[in-house]
Amino acid sequence: MTSVERGRVLLAVTGWDPGPWLAEFARAAPDREIVRAPAGPDDPTIRYALVWKPPPGLMSRLPNLAAIFSLGAGVDHVIDDTTLPDVPIVRIVADDLTNRMSEYVVWQVLDHLRQGRLYRAWQARRQWREAPQPAAGDVTVGIMGLGALGTDAAGKLAMLGFRLAGWSRRPKHLAGIACHSGEDGLAPFLGTSDILVVLLPLTAQTRGIINRRTLALMKRETPLGGPVLINAGRGGLQVEADIVEALDNGALMAASLDVFETEPLPATSPLWDHPAVTVTPHAAATSDPRRLVPIMARQMDDFEAGRPLANLVDRKAGY
Amino acid sequence: MTSVERGRVLLAVTGWDPGPWLAEFARAAPDREIVRAPAGPDDPTIRYALVWKPPPGLMSRLPNLAAIFSLGAGVDHVIDDTTLPDVPIVRIVADDLTNRMSEYVVWQVLDHLRQGRLYRAWQARRQWREAPQPAAGDVTVGIMGLGALGTDAAGKLAMLGFRLAGWSRRPKHLAGIACHSGEDGLAPFLGTSDILVVLLPLTAQTRGIINRRTLALMKRETPLGGPVLINAGRGGLQVEADIVEALDNGALMAASLDVFETEPLPATSPLWDHPAVTVTPHAAATSDPRRLVPIMARQMDDFEAGRPLANLVDRKAGY
Repeated sequence: MTSVERGRVLLAVTGWDPGPWLAEFARAAPDREIVRAPAGPDDPTIRYALVWKPPPGLMSRLPNLAAIFSLGAGVDHVIDDTTLPDVPIVRIVADDLTNRMSEYVVWQVLDHLRQGRLYRAWQARRQWREAPQPAAGDVTVGIMGLGALGTDAAGKLAMLGFRLAGWSRRPKHLAGIACHSGEDGLAPFLGTSDILVVLLPLTAQTRGIINRRTLALMKRETPLGGPVLINAGRGGLQVEADIVEALDNGALMAASLDVFETEPLPATSPLWDHPAVTVTPHAAATSDPRRLVPIMARQMDDFEAGRPLANLVDRKAGY
Repeated sequence: MTSVERGRVLLAVTGWDPGPWLAEFARAAPDREIVRAPAGPDDPTIRYALVWKPPPGLMSRLPNLAAIFSLGAGVDHVIDDTTLPDVPIVRIVADDLTNRMSEYVVWQVLDHLRQGRLYRAWQARRQWREAPQPAAGDVTVGIMGLGALGTDAAGKLAMLGFRLAGWSRRPKHLAGIACHSGEDGLAPFLGTSDILVVLLPLTAQTRGIINRRTLALMKRETPLGGPVLINAGRGGLQVEADIVEALDNGALMAASLDVFETEPLPATSPLWDHPAVTVTPHAAATSDPRRLVPIMARQMDDFEAGRPLANLVDRKAGY
């Protein structure tokens, strides 16, 4: 087949540098043509779209689109487009992305366990002073979202000796994790979590799930002195005003936030210089074209050879 | 046997609060008597000593001493006493201590991999900015010292995806670790390490091993932008003036130091406010009496039942 017969690939990314993606695609799939924009208002030559926050309405203008590949683990950035055609959406599942997310989670969990903020403050004051140090085995990390990312992070935290709890929309049974699910499972799950790690997909059901009501359900007395929140899922999962309030009234002791209601986080946000907050710029698990593009190119080949696409999004569930 | 027949236990600690050790010992071994000082110049009633930096000469005044238990993983704090009687010295090997050390190592390795200092500085300036982020699989962590601590840390880092190299005095072969040994192995080992983790015992051979000459053997170009040093072994392993010089001339990019030539670290040390140095107060793996005392009490029982003592120190090797 020529590249015209195989169809072209559209790269539609907002806020990202397209250069590395185009270069990597040219390297990994030299027999496929990749373009940055459709040829006209309805471009029949586009067969696949690789997307990150594609402009709403764009996908509906590609009559021969066979599949959409999301360049991030979450798909809320594409699925909210009400004009989206009824084609398969492939969620990227890649060891590289999973490993990076688990790195971030383990890094931040350990920074709280090992009192990083306290030691950095003491260092700044030249104070030789030791903080009480619970054992990992005395601390329960509660993971919200038990998909590929949550499960991997849980396994790595378990290996470091932490106790694990988990919450998911649908019931799951995972070795070594006290699993809870659904609305009814939320209170017992939050009541057992010393450190809460949020890795949920953003859907109509999960929007704003980290709020005043749920934060109040967390354990007040923990081996670390108070409950800790880590959100590396999506900013839309959290109500930031409620987080600041919880930090200030003691319902939360500290928070590590990689995602925000508005990104980039506005310079006026009180989160930036709150002494109990660690801010990172949606960098917990950056999509690396060198690692992700070959996986997508292989999936296109598989698809054309008649094999099913893996990691398809359930449009109804929203993830 | 009465407690007198079994002999008494001496707790000799310098710079630590003895209270929790005495309380835990009374709980774990209620049939043994523990005291804080010998009854006289030569006390024949003492059978065991639990020590952290015991005063030199003290052990030699206990004619019926059967064994010395070191309360820290290293034994340099006791073995340098030239008057030490020829009795077995038991090095503490405890999962709790090992886990805490690995937590510290993983925490600091991830803080360097994930550019913690950079992100904290950007947060302080309200800058939404992303740092280049190598994958763990592109970074080699070199572990100096492949005993219980080094091996455990290596396993946990491998599980997070890092490449591992190791160096030990005597040749070792460990799965998944590129092992080097001896003086000849030092240059190839250091030349392959992007992040160097020092967990060596302090002996006559290892004193000052982290110095201008060895730091210059480290890789200059690394995926993180420069080589990183993490020392959680002993302060006597490092020449601090050489570390500061290496940081300032680019031979080192950053350092995390938990141990120092003089402890507490003097307020005048340039390490306190060096922008590339993370200082913690010899807290990487704090000895927790609740976890360690029961292990030592069990070893005393075993010893009296005729079973051999485990984790004995090789007096000649010094660890």
